[in-house]
Amino acid sequence: MNNFTYDIPTKVYFGEYQLGHLGPELKNYGKKVLLTYGGGSIKKSGLYDKILEEIEKAGLELFELSGIDPNPRVASVNAGAEICRKEGIDVLLAVGGGSVIDCTKFIGAAAYHEGDAWDILTKKVTVEKCLPIITVLTLAATGSEMDAAGVISNPDTNDKIGMMFPVMRPKVSFLDPTLTYSVNQYQTACGAVDIMSHIIEVYFQTDQDLYMLDAVMEGLMKTVLKYGPIAMAEPENYEARANLMWASSWAINGFIRGGKRHAWSCHPMEHELSAFYDITHGLGLAILIPRWMDYVLNGETAGRFYQFGVNVFEIDAGLPEMEVAKKSIEKLKAFFFETLGLESTLTEIGIDDARFGEMAEKAAKLGATKHGFWPLTAGDIEKIFRMCL
Amino acid sequence: MNNFTYDIPTKVYFGEYQLGHLGPELKNYGKKVLLTYGGGSIKKSGLYDKILEEIEKAGLELFELSGIDPNPRVASVNAGAEICRKEGIDVLLAVGGGSVIDCTKFIGAAAYHEGDAWDILTKKVTVEKCLPIITVLTLAATGSEMDAAGVISNPDTNDKIGMMFPVMRPKVSFLDPTLTYSVNQYQTACGAVDIMSHIIEVYFQTDQDLYMLDAVMEGLMKTVLKYGPIAMAEPENYEARANLMWASSWAINGFIRGGKRHAWSCHPMEHELSAFYDITHGLGLAILIPRWMDYVLNGETAGRFYQFGVNVFEIDAGLPEMEVAKKSIEKLKAFFFETLGLESTLTEIGIDDARFGEMAEKAAKLGATKHGFWPLTAGDIEKIFRMCL
Repeated sequence: MNNFTYDIPTKVYFGEYQLGHLGPELKNYGKKVLLTYGGGSIKKSGLYDKILEEIEKAGLELFELSGIDPNPRVASVNAGAEICRKEGIDVLLAVGGGSVIDCTKFIGAAAYHEGDAWDILTKKVTVEKCLPIITVLTLAATGSEMDAAGVISNPDTNDKIGMMFPVMRPKVSFLDPTLTYSVNQYQTACGAVDIMSHIIEVYFQTDQDLYMLDAVMEGLMKTVLKYGPIAMAEPENYEARANLMWASSWAINGFIRGGKRHAWSCHPMEHELSAFYDITHGLGLAILIPRWMDYVLNGETAGRFYQFGVNVFEIDAGLPEMEVAKKSIEKLKAFFFETLGLESTLTEIGIDDARFGEMAEKAAKLGATKHGFWPLTAGDIEKIFRMCL
Repeated sequence: MNNFTYDIPTKVYFGEYQLGHLGPELKNYGKKVLLTYGGGSIKKSGLYDKILEEIEKAGLELFELSGIDPNPRVASVNAGAEICRKEGIDVLLAVGGGSVIDCTKFIGAAAYHEGDAWDILTKKVTVEKCLPIITVLTLAATGSEMDAAGVISNPDTNDKIGMMFPVMRPKVSFLDPTLTYSVNQYQTACGAVDIMSHIIEVYFQTDQDLYMLDAVMEGLMKTVLKYGPIAMAEPENYEARANLMWASSWAINGFIRGGKRHAWSCHPMEHELSAFYDITHGLGLAILIPRWMDYVLNGETAGRFYQFGVNVFEIDAGLPEMEVAKKSIEKLKAFFFETLGLESTLTEIGIDDARFGEMAEKAAKLGATKHGFWPLTAGDIEKIFRMCL
């Protein structure tokens, strides 16, 4: 068991009608607010007006950056950073899902960097300062509202890179489950996969674990299994939306990691899929994860799959270890492709093997996949991509 | 499901050999440190010397308050507060278990109050400021290392009162499982009960819950069931000590509460036992909790006991609800009195019914028991005390 530092100071207002706290919280950090958001959905839903009202009530000065894309691009980061520098922004207010929040984190960091924000993603500069960030979450998926990481794409180079700096962690996040009522079935399904994937990336470890955190992770995964389908069938089911929302934060804020060393395996692979084909992150993960599991399941790793099968899917503990392990993967496939109804192959979404070699090289080059639950070379990754066809 | 605010900013260094961070962390808050501790155990173990070394290395000025009792007394709080005011203390360093940390919290608060610290416990004054607190934990039990509450006794009036103020939450806590290797079997057992009790007080609620947090609580309780006996049999089992230590923090830091409204039931009753007879808190809880369960189990409450039985004790879910409910209480008794080997009745520890009436009146007067999982009057509480004979 390895040592670790736990340091997750994000304050969360959870529930409906909490926006009355937004103005005072923003005011704690200054007067000039840069509001960041994506397309027009927050205007359509009325959330934009409510936020403007709170900002006005608090006597704050508002600036805006809209049009942040899913798979957010470095161009948005640069545009935001320039506003921050030019206007002397004090605090960032990200309203949206993970894409908006991720982008805003790098805006906060890039505000202190005179050059291209992409230098941060390529590790040319280290982030030591970041403008304070407050978020209003509208999608339960990435957990960006409570973690210190973000992922940015560069379409010029087909790169999609994730980075983490403690100073980028949001100071305050507003989690109102009703704001996710309008998330459609498909995005709800992709969000459920994303939450599940963050737990799976940590749960599958060979390090000797804190059993306590295993139990917490199993509880979080069962939460997703239970409420993902309910939220799809009944979009305005508060209990389902609330459970998914709070689970999304705890799947990735760092708590469940507890000193585990292994790097993540499936995210680096999926980032190549999204970078080359701009697909939804959760869909890419749904297709990849079970094939990665098929590939890494062996005599050495079966124990962990057995525990996954018994404690998460309630498979009979009396069956042979390998049988339970295989069944657990089948159960996960059934959840992703039948219950959540997602496409199950890359072929179905129009992706062929034309660029698998190049993508696998890029994924391997980032280095993490060598240090995962089961070490993966570029060759391994290419094979896993092929299993997804 | 009720709204809530999550705000738990305590930073934790978890594991062995983390004390190198102590000096720099203290220094963040100033130069003058008041070290608080109990009897001489930290001198015997060598921890005292290690801490002094770190303080010296950081160039800090040291003051000391020792002799803080289990069930800490208001006299210690007043003594500590006087040192703080006289010496202009910048930061408090509590080294010990819950008693030392609880006492230190009220020292930090009372430093800003010129009168008797007992005024804080009787709600004559409200705590709005507290000196920053850093803790080094030596016992997995109360969770005081990460929460905002504390309990203080006043032997003159047979009062033992718990209070919670957000500003009293420790800034940084050092959790080194090896520091609990020297905790004896009996105290290890009482600590396990204390952790379990904090979860039970929240788990038994009639509010519509976040299932996700139920799952987390069930995982935490299973952690205690698994590792309590291991830590007793093998005091230097790192995995057992680590799991109990981290579970102790998460049982009470506020995370599992998630908007649940009901007040705690068993702690107000136990506080009377400890106040009148100065018994170990965990032992009092072990004797009380199952009798409270026997008393409040009925047609309306059985559902919660059923879930407890199935998910924590793995009782056959196919049995009738009331049967599972009753079995769950039997399982808990077996854990406390057989597995952990604790005394099972007040009679065994020399407490008779002489003062039950008075104790029940005092417990009821504090008000919380009216608003618990099942409302309790003074008459109910006296009956529960009698069931413990």
